[in-house]
Amino acid sequence: MPDRAIGVFDSGVGGLTVLKEIQRLLPGEEVLYLGDTARVPYGTKSPATVRRYALEAASFLTRRRVKMLVVACNTASSVALGDLENRFKLPVIGVIEPGARRAVSVTRTGRIGVIGTEGTIKSGAYTLAIKQLAPDADVVALHCPLFVPLVEEGWLDHPVTRLAAEEYLGSLRHHGIDTLVLGCTHYPLLKPVLQQVLGPQVMLIDSAEETAIAVADRLQQLSHVRPLGEAIPPQFFVTDVPERFQRVGGEFLGCPLPKVEQVSLD
Amino acid sequence: MPDRAIGVFDSGVGGLTVLKEIQRLLPGEEVLYLGDTARVPYGTKSPATVRRYALEAASFLTRRRVKMLVVACNTASSVALGDLENRFKLPVIGVIEPGARRAVSVTRTGRIGVIGTEGTIKSGAYTLAIKQLAPDADVVALHCPLFVPLVEEGWLDHPVTRLAAEEYLGSLRHHGIDTLVLGCTHYPLLKPVLQQVLGPQVMLIDSAEETAIAVADRLQQLSHVRPLGEAIPPQFFVTDVPERFQRVGGEFLGCPLPKVEQVSLD
Repeated sequence: MPDRAIGVFDSGVGGLTVLKEIQRLLPGEEVLYLGDTARVPYGTKSPATVRRYALEAASFLTRRRVKMLVVACNTASSVALGDLENRFKLPVIGVIEPGARRAVSVTRTGRIGVIGTEGTIKSGAYTLAIKQLAPDADVVALHCPLFVPLVEEGWLDHPVTRLAAEEYLGSLRHHGIDTLVLGCTHYPLLKPVLQQVLGPQVMLIDSAEETAIAVADRLQQLSHVRPLGEAIPPQFFVTDVPERFQRVGGEFLGCPLPKVEQVSLD
Repeated sequence: MPDRAIGVFDSGVGGLTVLKEIQRLLPGEEVLYLGDTARVPYGTKSPATVRRYALEAASFLTRRRVKMLVVACNTASSVALGDLENRFKLPVIGVIEPGARRAVSVTRTGRIGVIGTEGTIKSGAYTLAIKQLAPDADVVALHCPLFVPLVEEGWLDHPVTRLAAEEYLGSLRHHGIDTLVLGCTHYPLLKPVLQQVLGPQVMLIDSAEETAIAVADRLQQLSHVRPLGEAIPPQFFVTDVPERFQRVGGEFLGCPLPKVEQVSLD
Protein backbone atom coordinates (compact mmCIF):
# COMPACT_ATOMS: atom_id res chain seq x y z
CA MET A 1 0.00 0.00 0.00
CA PRO A 2 2.76 2.58 0.75
CA ASP A 3 3.92 2.31 -2.86
CA ARG A 4 0.61 3.47 -4.24
CA ALA A 5 0.06 7.07 -5.28
CA ILE A 6 -1.98 9.76 -3.57
CA GLY A 7 -4.91 10.92 -5.73
CA VAL A 8 -5.63 14.65 -5.69
CA PHE A 9 -8.45 16.38 -7.57
CA ASP A 10 -9.83 19.85 -8.08
CA SER A 11 -12.07 21.57 -10.59
CA GLY A 12 -8.99 23.06 -12.25
CA VAL A 13 -5.62 24.54 -11.36
CA GLY A 14 -6.41 25.78 -7.84
CA GLY A 15 -5.62 22.44 -6.19
CA LEU A 16 -2.04 22.75 -7.38
CA THR A 17 -1.44 24.89 -4.27
CA VAL A 18 -2.29 21.77 -2.25
CA LEU A 19 -0.18 19.52 -4.46
CA LYS A 20 2.77 21.86 -3.97
CA GLU A 21 2.51 21.61 -0.18
CA ILE A 22 2.14 17.81 -0.30
CA GLN A 23 5.28 17.58 -2.39
CA ARG A 24 7.16 19.87 -0.03
CA LEU A 25 6.12 17.90 3.06
CA LEU A 26 6.16 14.41 1.52
CA PRO A 27 8.81 14.44 -1.20
CA GLY A 28 8.83 10.64 -1.44
CA GLU A 29 5.18 10.33 -2.45
CA GLU A 30 3.85 9.85 -5.97
CA VAL A 31 0.83 12.04 -6.71
CA LEU A 32 -1.83 11.76 -9.43
CA TYR A 33 -3.53 15.12 -9.96
CA LEU A 34 -6.82 15.48 -11.82
CA GLY A 35 -8.23 18.89 -12.84
CA ASP A 36 -11.80 18.80 -14.19
CA THR A 37 -11.08 21.67 -16.57
CA ALA A 38 -13.92 20.86 -18.98
CA ARG A 39 -16.42 21.71 -16.24
CA VAL A 40 -14.54 24.26 -14.15
CA PRO A 41 -15.52 26.14 -11.97
CA TYR A 42 -17.39 24.22 -9.27
CA GLY A 43 -17.82 27.25 -7.00
CA THR A 44 -20.89 28.64 -8.79
CA LYS A 45 -22.64 25.30 -9.26
CA SER A 46 -25.20 23.52 -7.12
CA PRO A 47 -24.28 20.97 -4.41
CA ALA A 48 -25.97 18.18 -6.41
CA THR A 49 -23.95 18.92 -9.54
CA VAL A 50 -20.68 19.32 -7.62
CA ARG A 51 -21.34 15.99 -5.85
CA ARG A 52 -21.81 14.23 -9.19
CA TYR A 53 -18.61 15.74 -10.59
CA ALA A 54 -16.64 14.89 -7.43
CA LEU A 55 -17.78 11.25 -7.54
CA GLU A 56 -16.75 11.00 -11.19
CA ALA A 57 -13.35 12.54 -10.48
CA ALA A 58 -12.76 10.25 -7.51
CA SER A 59 -13.82 7.20 -9.55
CA PHE A 60 -11.18 8.05 -12.13
CA LEU A 61 -8.48 8.19 -9.46
CA THR A 62 -9.58 5.06 -7.59
CA ARG A 63 -9.50 3.09 -10.86
CA ARG A 64 -5.80 3.95 -10.82
CA ARG A 65 -5.55 2.37 -7.38
CA VAL A 66 -4.56 5.37 -5.29
CA LYS A 67 -4.11 4.83 -1.53
CA MET A 68 -5.79 8.08 -0.51
CA LEU A 69 -8.08 10.74 -1.98
CA VAL A 70 -7.35 14.41 -1.40
CA VAL A 71 -10.18 16.76 -2.34
CA ALA A 72 -8.08 19.84 -3.13
CA CYS A 73 -11.13 21.97 -3.82
CA ASN A 74 -13.02 23.80 -1.12
CA THR A 75 -16.37 23.65 -2.90
CA ALA A 76 -16.19 19.88 -3.43
CA SER A 77 -14.89 19.38 0.13
CA SER A 78 -17.84 21.42 1.42
CA VAL A 79 -20.58 19.39 -0.21
CA ALA A 80 -19.19 16.00 -1.27
CA LEU A 81 -16.81 14.71 1.42
CA GLY A 82 -19.38 12.47 3.09
CA ASP A 83 -20.51 11.02 -0.25
CA LEU A 84 -16.92 10.23 -1.20
CA GLU A 85 -16.21 8.54 2.14
CA ASN A 86 -19.37 6.44 1.78
CA ARG A 87 -18.67 5.42 -1.79
CA PHE A 88 -14.96 4.61 -1.66
CA LYS A 89 -13.13 2.40 0.81
CA LEU A 90 -10.26 4.82 1.14
CA PRO A 91 -9.11 7.60 3.44
CA VAL A 92 -10.49 10.90 2.11
CA ILE A 93 -8.96 14.23 3.13
CA GLY A 94 -10.70 17.51 2.35
CA VAL A 95 -9.44 21.05 2.78
CA ILE A 96 -12.13 22.36 5.16
CA GLU A 97 -11.34 20.62 8.44
CA PRO A 98 -7.58 21.30 8.32
CA GLY A 99 -8.18 25.02 7.66
CA ALA A 100 -10.78 25.24 10.41
CA ARG A 101 -8.46 23.49 12.89
CA ARG A 102 -5.63 25.87 12.17
CA ALA A 103 -7.88 28.94 12.46
CA VAL A 104 -9.13 27.82 15.86
CA SER A 105 -5.61 27.19 17.07
CA VAL A 106 -4.28 30.63 16.15
CA THR A 107 -7.17 33.00 16.90
CA ARG A 108 -6.87 35.00 20.11
CA THR A 109 -10.16 36.88 19.98
CA GLY A 110 -12.27 34.03 18.57
CA ARG A 111 -13.42 36.28 15.73
CA ILE A 112 -12.70 34.33 12.56
CA GLY A 113 -13.43 35.34 8.98
CA VAL A 114 -13.86 32.85 6.13
CA ILE A 115 -13.82 33.73 2.43
CA GLY A 116 -14.59 31.34 -0.43
CA THR A 117 -16.73 30.65 -3.46
CA GLU A 118 -20.50 30.94 -3.37
CA GLY A 119 -20.82 27.15 -3.10
CA THR A 120 -18.39 26.86 -0.20
CA ILE A 121 -19.86 29.72 1.81
CA LYS A 122 -23.48 28.75 1.22
CA SER A 123 -22.75 25.20 2.39
CA GLY A 124 -21.83 26.55 5.82
CA ALA A 125 -19.14 23.86 6.05
CA TYR A 126 -16.42 26.11 7.47
CA THR A 127 -18.70 27.65 10.08
CA LEU A 128 -19.79 24.16 11.13
CA ALA A 129 -16.22 22.83 11.28
CA ILE A 130 -15.02 25.83 13.31
CA LYS A 131 -17.98 25.69 15.70
CA GLN A 132 -17.40 21.98 16.32
CA LEU A 133 -13.86 22.78 17.45
CA ALA A 134 -14.67 26.06 19.22
CA PRO A 135 -18.37 26.48 19.97
CA ASP A 136 -17.89 30.07 21.16
CA ALA A 137 -16.12 31.24 18.01
CA ASP A 138 -17.67 34.18 16.18
CA VAL A 139 -17.50 33.28 12.48
CA VAL A 140 -18.17 35.68 9.59
CA ALA A 141 -18.27 33.99 6.19
CA LEU A 142 -18.57 35.69 2.83
CA HIS A 143 -18.12 34.79 -0.80
CA CYS A 144 -15.82 36.74 -3.08
CA PRO A 145 -16.72 35.56 -6.60
CA LEU A 146 -14.23 37.80 -8.40
CA PHE A 147 -11.11 36.53 -6.64
CA VAL A 148 -10.87 33.34 -8.73
CA PRO A 149 -11.12 35.13 -12.09
CA LEU A 150 -8.68 37.80 -10.85
CA VAL A 151 -6.12 35.11 -9.99
CA GLU A 152 -6.70 33.32 -13.30
CA GLU A 153 -6.16 36.63 -15.10
CA GLY A 154 -2.82 36.89 -13.28
CA TRP A 155 -3.72 40.24 -11.68
CA LEU A 156 -2.20 39.22 -8.35
CA ASP A 157 -0.88 42.64 -7.44
CA HIS A 158 -3.06 44.98 -9.46
CA PRO A 159 -5.13 48.05 -8.58
CA VAL A 160 -8.31 46.26 -9.71
CA THR A 161 -7.61 43.40 -7.33
CA ARG A 162 -6.85 45.76 -4.48
CA LEU A 163 -10.08 47.68 -5.05
CA ALA A 164 -12.11 44.46 -5.23
CA ALA A 165 -10.46 43.24 -2.01
CA GLU A 166 -11.32 46.50 -0.26
CA GLU A 167 -14.92 46.17 -1.40
CA TYR A 168 -15.27 42.55 -0.26
CA LEU A 169 -13.25 42.71 2.95
CA GLY A 170 -14.58 45.98 4.35
CA SER A 171 -17.24 44.18 6.38
CA LEU A 172 -14.67 41.73 7.82
CA ARG A 173 -12.42 44.58 8.89
CA HIS A 174 -15.40 46.25 10.49
CA HIS A 175 -16.16 43.01 12.34
CA GLY A 176 -12.72 43.01 13.97
CA ILE A 177 -11.58 39.52 12.94
CA ASP A 178 -8.05 38.50 13.86
CA THR A 179 -7.92 35.41 11.63
CA LEU A 180 -9.03 34.88 8.03
CA VAL A 181 -9.39 31.45 6.43
CA LEU A 182 -8.58 31.51 2.71
CA GLY A 183 -11.31 29.03 1.85
CA CYS A 184 -10.47 28.59 -1.81
CA THR A 185 -7.33 27.12 -3.31
CA HIS A 186 -6.87 30.13 -5.58
CA TYR A 187 -6.66 32.64 -2.76
CA PRO A 188 -3.15 31.95 -1.43
CA LEU A 189 -1.87 33.73 -4.55
CA LEU A 190 -3.62 36.88 -3.29
CA LYS A 191 -2.00 36.76 0.16
CA PRO A 192 0.07 39.96 -0.24
CA VAL A 193 -2.85 42.11 -1.34
CA LEU A 194 -5.23 40.60 1.24
CA GLN A 195 -2.70 41.20 3.99
CA GLN A 196 -2.27 44.81 2.92
CA VAL A 197 -6.02 45.43 2.88
CA LEU A 198 -6.67 43.73 6.23
CA GLY A 199 -3.55 44.93 8.01
CA PRO A 200 -0.76 42.97 9.73
CA GLN A 201 -2.86 42.08 12.80
CA VAL A 202 -4.98 39.60 10.82
CA MET A 203 -3.54 36.09 10.40
CA LEU A 204 -4.22 34.52 6.99
CA ILE A 205 -4.85 30.76 7.05
CA ASP A 206 -3.86 28.86 3.93
CA SER A 207 -5.76 25.57 3.72
CA ALA A 208 -3.13 24.12 1.40
CA GLU A 209 -0.41 23.94 4.07
CA GLU A 210 -2.79 22.56 6.69
CA THR A 211 -4.18 19.98 4.30
CA ALA A 212 -0.71 18.68 3.49
CA ILE A 213 -0.08 18.25 7.22
CA ALA A 214 -3.36 16.33 7.56
CA VAL A 215 -2.33 14.09 4.64
CA ALA A 216 1.05 13.36 6.27
CA ASP A 217 -0.58 12.63 9.64
CA ARG A 218 -3.11 10.20 8.16
CA LEU A 219 -0.49 8.37 6.10
CA GLN A 220 1.64 7.96 9.21
CA GLN A 221 -1.32 6.67 11.26
CA LEU A 222 -2.01 4.09 8.55
CA SER A 223 1.69 3.26 8.03
CA HIS A 224 1.18 4.14 4.39
CA VAL A 225 4.08 6.58 4.02
CA ARG A 226 6.18 5.72 1.00
CA PRO A 227 9.86 5.25 1.92
CA LEU A 228 12.06 8.05 0.61
CA GLY A 229 13.73 7.03 -2.61
CA GLU A 230 14.09 8.30 -6.10
CA ALA A 231 11.64 11.19 -6.54
CA ILE A 232 8.67 10.28 -8.76
CA PRO A 233 7.25 13.23 -10.69
CA PRO A 234 3.51 13.81 -10.31
CA GLN A 235 1.17 12.80 -13.12
CA PHE A 236 -1.35 15.35 -14.35
CA PHE A 237 -4.73 14.65 -15.93
CA VAL A 238 -7.28 17.18 -17.17
CA THR A 239 -10.69 16.89 -18.85
CA ASP A 240 -10.21 19.72 -21.37
CA VAL A 241 -7.17 20.20 -23.60
CA PRO A 242 -4.03 20.73 -21.48
CA GLU A 243 -2.78 24.07 -22.91
CA ARG A 244 -4.53 26.50 -20.57
CA PHE A 245 -3.96 24.25 -17.52
CA GLN A 246 -0.26 24.12 -18.30
CA ARG A 247 -0.03 27.88 -18.72
CA VAL A 248 -2.00 28.96 -15.64
CA GLY A 249 -0.88 25.96 -13.58
CA GLY A 250 2.75 26.92 -14.01
CA GLU A 251 2.03 30.11 -12.05
CA PHE A 252 0.46 28.09 -9.24
CA LEU A 253 3.33 25.63 -8.96
CA GLY A 254 6.00 28.23 -9.59
CA CYS A 255 7.61 26.03 -12.23
CA PRO A 256 6.67 24.69 -15.66
CA LEU A 257 4.34 21.67 -15.66
CA PRO A 258 5.48 18.43 -17.26
CA LYS A 259 3.30 16.38 -19.60
CA VAL A 260 -0.45 16.70 -18.97
CA GLU A 261 -2.83 14.07 -20.30
CA GLN A 262 -6.43 14.75 -21.37
CA VAL A 263 -8.98 12.20 -20.12
CA SER A 264 -12.76 11.81 -20.14
CA LEU A 265 -14.84 11.38 -16.96
CA ASP A 266 -18.36 11.08 -18.39
CA MET B 1 -43.46 24.74 -39.66
CA PRO B 2 -44.30 28.36 -38.65
CA ASP B 3 -45.97 27.02 -35.51
CA ARG B 4 -42.78 25.41 -34.24
CA ALA B 5 -40.60 27.13 -31.66
CA ILE B 6 -37.23 28.79 -32.12
CA GLY B 7 -34.49 27.03 -30.14
CA VAL B 8 -31.94 29.28 -28.45
CA PHE B 9 -28.97 28.08 -26.41
CA ASP B 10 -26.07 29.54 -24.48
CA SER B 11 -23.67 28.35 -21.80
CA GLY B 12 -25.73 30.19 -19.20
CA VAL B 13 -27.64 33.42 -18.74
CA GLY B 14 -25.80 35.59 -21.28
CA GLY B 15 -27.94 34.50 -24.22
CA LEU B 16 -30.99 35.99 -22.51
CA THR B 17 -29.90 39.33 -24.04
CA VAL B 18 -30.50 37.67 -27.44
CA LEU B 19 -33.78 36.12 -26.32
CA LYS B 20 -34.97 39.54 -25.16
CA GLU B 21 -34.31 41.08 -28.59
CA ILE B 22 -35.99 38.17 -30.39
CA GLN B 23 -39.08 38.63 -28.24
CA ARG B 24 -39.10 42.36 -28.89
CA LEU B 25 -38.80 41.94 -32.66
CA LEU B 26 -40.89 38.77 -33.03
CA PRO B 27 -43.49 38.84 -30.28
CA GLY B 28 -45.54 36.09 -31.91
CA GLU B 29 -42.78 33.47 -31.73
CA GLU B 30 -42.44 30.73 -29.16
CA VAL B 31 -38.88 30.32 -27.88
CA LEU B 32 -37.19 27.41 -26.09
CA TYR B 33 -34.11 28.60 -24.24
CA LEU B 34 -31.43 26.24 -22.95
CA GLY B 35 -28.62 27.39 -20.61
CA ASP B 36 -25.87 24.80 -20.03
CA THR B 37 -25.33 26.01 -16.48
CA ALA B 38 -23.74 22.78 -15.23
CA ARG B 39 -20.79 23.41 -17.54
CA VAL B 40 -20.71 27.21 -17.81
CA PRO B 41 -18.58 29.07 -18.92
CA TYR B 42 -17.62 28.08 -22.47
CA GLY B 43 -15.33 31.08 -23.01
CA THR B 44 -12.30 29.59 -21.25
CA LYS B 45 -12.65 26.09 -22.73
CA SER B 46 -11.11 24.55 -25.83
CA PRO B 47 -12.79 24.58 -29.26
CA ALA B 48 -13.13 20.77 -29.14
CA THR B 49 -14.92 20.80 -25.79
CA VAL B 50 -17.17 23.73 -26.76
CA ARG B 51 -18.08 21.92 -30.01
CA ARG B 52 -19.10 18.82 -28.07
CA TYR B 53 -21.21 20.86 -25.64
CA ALA B 54 -22.84 22.83 -28.49
CA LEU B 55 -23.78 19.64 -30.34
CA GLU B 56 -25.34 18.22 -27.16
CA ALA B 57 -27.28 21.43 -26.51
CA ALA B 58 -28.52 21.57 -30.10
CA SER B 59 -29.53 17.88 -29.99
CA PHE B 60 -31.68 18.60 -26.96
CA LEU B 61 -33.48 21.42 -28.79
CA THR B 62 -33.90 19.57 -32.09
CA ARG B 63 -35.50 16.64 -30.25
CA ARG B 64 -38.15 19.19 -29.31
CA ARG B 65 -38.66 19.91 -33.01
CA VAL B 66 -37.61 23.55 -33.16
CA LYS B 67 -37.72 25.23 -36.59
CA MET B 68 -34.46 27.12 -36.14
CA LEU B 69 -31.36 27.07 -33.92
CA VAL B 70 -29.98 30.31 -32.51
CA VAL B 71 -26.51 30.01 -30.98
CA ALA B 72 -26.78 32.85 -28.48
CA CYS B 73 -23.20 32.44 -27.31
CA ASN B 74 -20.25 34.04 -29.02
CA THR B 75 -17.80 31.31 -28.06
CA ALA B 76 -20.00 28.51 -29.42
CA SER B 77 -20.81 30.58 -32.52
CA SER B 78 -17.08 31.10 -33.08
CA VAL B 79 -16.09 27.46 -33.09
CA ALA B 80 -19.19 25.28 -33.62
CA LEU B 81 -21.46 26.95 -36.21
CA GLY B 82 -20.20 24.85 -39.11
CA ASP B 83 -20.52 21.61 -37.12
CA LEU B 84 -24.10 22.47 -36.14
CA GLU B 85 -25.05 23.29 -39.75
CA ASN B 86 -23.56 20.02 -40.94
CA ARG B 87 -25.20 17.91 -38.27
CA PHE B 88 -28.72 19.35 -38.21
CA LYS B 89 -31.02 19.98 -41.15
CA LEU B 90 -32.15 23.32 -39.81
CA PRO B 91 -31.30 26.98 -40.25
CA VAL B 92 -28.63 27.91 -37.70
CA ILE B 93 -28.03 31.55 -36.74
CA GLY B 94 -24.97 32.55 -34.74
CA VAL B 95 -24.11 35.88 -33.18
CA ILE B 96 -20.81 36.56 -34.99
CA GLU B 97 -21.89 37.36 -38.55
CA PRO B 98 -24.71 39.74 -37.53
CA GLY B 99 -22.38 41.70 -35.25
CA ALA B 100 -19.66 41.85 -37.89
CA ARG B 101 -22.14 43.03 -40.53
CA ARG B 102 -23.39 45.83 -38.32
CA ALA B 103 -19.86 46.94 -37.42
CA VAL B 104 -18.88 47.16 -41.08
CA SER B 105 -21.99 49.17 -41.90
CA VAL B 106 -21.45 51.81 -39.21
CA THR B 107 -17.68 52.32 -39.15
CA ARG B 108 -16.41 55.44 -40.88
CA THR B 109 -12.68 54.96 -40.35
CA GLY B 110 -12.61 51.18 -40.84
CA ARG B 111 -10.89 50.78 -37.47
CA ILE B 112 -12.99 48.23 -35.60
CA GLY B 113 -12.39 46.81 -32.13
CA VAL B 114 -13.74 43.46 -30.96
CA ILE B 115 -13.87 42.29 -27.35
CA GLY B 116 -14.91 38.83 -26.17
CA THR B 117 -13.93 35.74 -24.23
CA GLU B 118 -10.60 34.02 -24.72
CA GLY B 119 -12.28 31.33 -26.85
CA THR B 120 -14.03 33.81 -29.12
CA ILE B 121 -11.00 36.02 -29.67
CA LYS B 122 -8.55 33.15 -30.19
CA SER B 123 -10.85 31.63 -32.82
CA GLY B 124 -10.39 34.72 -34.98
CA ALA B 125 -14.02 34.37 -36.06
CA TYR B 126 -14.91 38.06 -35.79
CA THR B 127 -11.81 39.22 -37.64
CA LEU B 128 -12.55 36.74 -40.40
CA ALA B 129 -16.22 37.73 -40.64
CA ILE B 130 -15.36 41.45 -40.73
CA LYS B 131 -12.60 40.97 -43.30
CA GLN B 132 -14.91 38.99 -45.57
CA LEU B 133 -17.30 41.95 -45.62
CA ALA B 134 -14.65 44.68 -45.67
CA PRO B 135 -11.19 43.39 -46.65
CA ASP B 136 -9.55 46.74 -45.84
CA ALA B 137 -10.91 46.96 -42.30
CA ASP B 138 -8.35 47.31 -39.52
CA VAL B 139 -9.50 44.95 -36.76
CA VAL B 140 -8.12 44.87 -33.20
CA ALA B 141 -9.45 41.98 -31.11
CA LEU B 142 -8.80 41.37 -27.45
CA HIS B 143 -10.18 39.20 -24.70
CA CYS B 144 -11.46 40.65 -21.43
CA PRO B 145 -11.84 37.64 -19.10
CA LEU B 146 -13.04 39.65 -16.10
CA PHE B 147 -16.06 41.25 -17.78
CA VAL B 148 -18.23 38.11 -17.49
CA PRO B 149 -17.60 37.61 -13.75
CA LEU B 150 -18.07 41.35 -13.15
CA VAL B 151 -21.49 41.23 -14.83
CA GLU B 152 -22.43 38.06 -12.94
CA GLU B 153 -21.43 39.79 -9.71
CA GLY B 154 -23.83 42.60 -10.63
CA TRP B 155 -21.08 45.25 -10.52
CA LEU B 156 -22.39 46.94 -13.65
CA ASP B 157 -21.57 50.47 -12.56
CA HIS B 158 -18.82 49.99 -10.00
CA PRO B 159 -15.34 51.47 -9.58
CA VAL B 160 -13.78 48.01 -9.96
CA THR B 161 -15.52 47.54 -13.31
CA ARG B 162 -14.49 51.00 -14.49
CA LEU B 163 -10.86 50.36 -13.55
CA ALA B 164 -10.87 46.95 -15.27
CA ALA B 165 -12.40 48.52 -18.39
CA GLU B 166 -9.71 51.22 -18.43
CA GLU B 167 -7.03 48.55 -18.14
CA TYR B 168 -8.45 46.40 -20.94
CA LEU B 169 -9.58 49.12 -23.34
CA GLY B 170 -6.56 51.41 -23.13
CA SER B 171 -4.95 49.75 -26.15
CA LEU B 172 -8.16 50.07 -28.20
CA ARG B 173 -8.43 53.76 -27.40
CA HIS B 174 -4.81 54.17 -28.41
CA HIS B 175 -5.57 52.41 -31.69
CA GLY B 176 -8.23 54.99 -32.58
CA ILE B 177 -11.15 52.64 -33.22
CA ASP B 178 -14.53 54.23 -33.98
CA THR B 179 -16.57 51.03 -33.56
CA LEU B 180 -16.46 48.32 -30.88
CA VAL B 181 -18.18 44.96 -31.24
CA LEU B 182 -19.39 43.61 -27.89
CA GLY B 183 -18.52 40.03 -28.75
CA CYS B 184 -20.01 38.37 -25.68
CA THR B 185 -23.64 38.27 -24.66
CA HIS B 186 -22.80 39.50 -21.17
CA TYR B 187 -21.23 42.73 -22.35
CA PRO B 188 -24.35 44.73 -23.29
CA LEU B 189 -24.96 45.14 -19.55
CA LEU B 190 -21.65 47.03 -19.37
CA LYS B 191 -22.54 49.49 -22.16
CA PRO B 192 -22.69 52.60 -19.93
CA VAL B 193 -19.27 52.04 -18.37
CA LEU B 194 -17.67 51.00 -21.68
CA GLN B 195 -19.07 54.07 -23.39
CA GLN B 196 -17.71 56.32 -20.62
CA VAL B 197 -14.25 54.76 -20.85
CA LEU B 198 -14.07 54.88 -24.67
CA GLY B 199 -15.80 58.22 -25.17
CA PRO B 200 -18.92 59.11 -27.15
CA GLN B 201 -17.19 58.92 -30.55
CA VAL B 202 -16.97 55.10 -30.38
CA MET B 203 -20.09 53.21 -31.53
CA LEU B 204 -20.83 50.07 -29.46
CA ILE B 205 -22.26 47.16 -31.44
CA ASP B 206 -24.54 44.83 -29.54
CA SER B 207 -24.71 41.44 -31.25
CA ALA B 208 -28.02 40.66 -29.57
CA GLU B 209 -30.01 43.26 -31.53
CA GLU B 210 -28.35 42.33 -34.82
CA THR B 211 -28.87 38.63 -34.23
CA ALA B 212 -32.59 39.13 -33.65
CA ILE B 213 -32.78 40.98 -36.98
CA ALA B 214 -30.97 38.09 -38.69
CA VAL B 215 -33.44 35.64 -37.11
CA ALA B 216 -36.42 37.68 -38.37
CA ASP B 217 -34.93 37.98 -41.87
CA ARG B 218 -34.30 34.25 -42.16
CA LEU B 219 -37.75 33.32 -40.89
CA GLN B 220 -39.30 35.67 -43.44
CA GLN B 221 -37.17 34.23 -46.28
CA LEU B 222 -38.34 30.74 -45.34
CA SER B 223 -41.98 31.82 -44.73
CA HIS B 224 -41.61 30.40 -41.23
CA VAL B 225 -42.84 33.43 -39.30
CA ARG B 226 -45.51 32.47 -36.82
CA PRO B 227 -48.71 34.50 -37.29
CA LEU B 228 -49.30 36.95 -34.46
CA GLY B 229 -51.73 35.51 -31.96
CA GLU B 230 -51.86 34.92 -28.26
CA ALA B 231 -48.37 35.44 -26.86
CA ILE B 232 -46.69 32.19 -25.83
CA PRO B 233 -44.25 32.56 -22.93
CA PRO B 234 -40.74 31.21 -23.52
CA GLN B 235 -39.73 27.89 -21.96
CA PHE B 236 -36.48 27.76 -20.02
CA PHE B 237 -34.23 24.74 -19.51
CA VAL B 238 -30.96 24.56 -17.58
CA THR B 239 -28.50 21.76 -16.79
CA ASP B 240 -27.80 22.77 -13.16
CA VAL B 241 -30.44 23.60 -10.56
CA PRO B 242 -32.49 26.66 -11.64
CA GLU B 243 -32.00 28.95 -8.61
CA ARG B 244 -28.93 30.88 -9.71
CA PHE B 245 -30.11 31.08 -13.34
CA GLN B 246 -33.40 32.56 -12.20
CA ARG B 247 -31.71 35.10 -9.96
CA VAL B 248 -29.01 36.33 -12.37
CA GLY B 249 -31.22 35.82 -15.43
CA GLY B 250 -33.85 38.18 -14.06
CA GLU B 251 -31.27 40.98 -14.29
CA PHE B 252 -30.57 40.12 -17.90
CA LEU B 253 -34.21 40.04 -18.95
CA GLY B 254 -35.20 42.94 -16.74
CA CYS B 255 -38.11 40.95 -15.30
CA PRO B 256 -38.54 37.84 -13.16
CA LEU B 257 -38.14 34.52 -14.97
CA PRO B 258 -41.04 32.07 -15.00
CA LYS B 259 -40.63 28.35 -14.34
CA VAL B 260 -37.21 26.94 -15.25
CA GLU B 261 -36.79 23.19 -15.76
CA GLN B 262 -33.60 21.26 -15.05
CA VAL B 263 -32.57 18.76 -17.75
CA SER B 264 -29.61 16.49 -18.49
CA LEU B 265 -27.62 16.67 -21.73
CA ASP B 266 -25.03 13.93 -21.18
